[in-house]
Amino acid sequence: MAEDNSVLIGKKPVMNYVLACISLFHGGANEVSVKARGRAISRAIDVVEITRRRFMPDLKIHKIGIGTEELMVFEEGGAPSNVSTIEITLEK
Amino acid sequence: MAEDNSVLIGKKPVMNYVLACISLFHGGANEVSVKARGRAISRAIDVVEITRRRFMPDLKIHKIGIGTEELMVFEEGGAPSNVSTIEITLEK
Repeated sequence: MAEDNSVLIGKKPVMNYVLACISLFHGGANEVSVKARGRAISRAIDVVEITRRRFMPDLKIHKIGIGTEELMVFEEGGAPSNVSTIEITLEK
Repeated sequence: MAEDNSVLIGKKPVMNYVLACISLFHGGANEVSVKARGRAISRAIDVVEITRRRFMPDLKIHKIGIGTEELMVFEEGGAPSNVSTIEITLEK
């Protein structure tokens, strides 16, 4: 899958990311990967659910992966701080 | 899978739920299902990641499912309000 076909979820309204997914599929992508870290993870699932249920009911969830990233920001005391991640791959 | 072997993630500290998962496995469960809705979803992933990485490295992620639940609480204006859900099944 090309690196371009991914949507990184941040703090914008959910519909911005839904539109980003739809645009990628309409632009010819067969797979789109929705990625998020930390608190944005629940928004990532909202994006996937709204995209599928409201706009593109034929989309399938190809894969869901979760993981941990070690942040390069150190907390007071010097312990590295970890953040959970999710990657949901949607398929036309 | 027995209904009992599930941990519903709420607003308590992450380690409470990690301990709940570990206890279920130590009590003989072969599968434990971690469930969450809405904003608790990112905490569910933290629970799974910490349980696996820090305490039970042999656990496998058997399945991750996402979905939408229609809440029986109606917003002003009368539209039903939806919430995203996740269910992560861990396997010994």
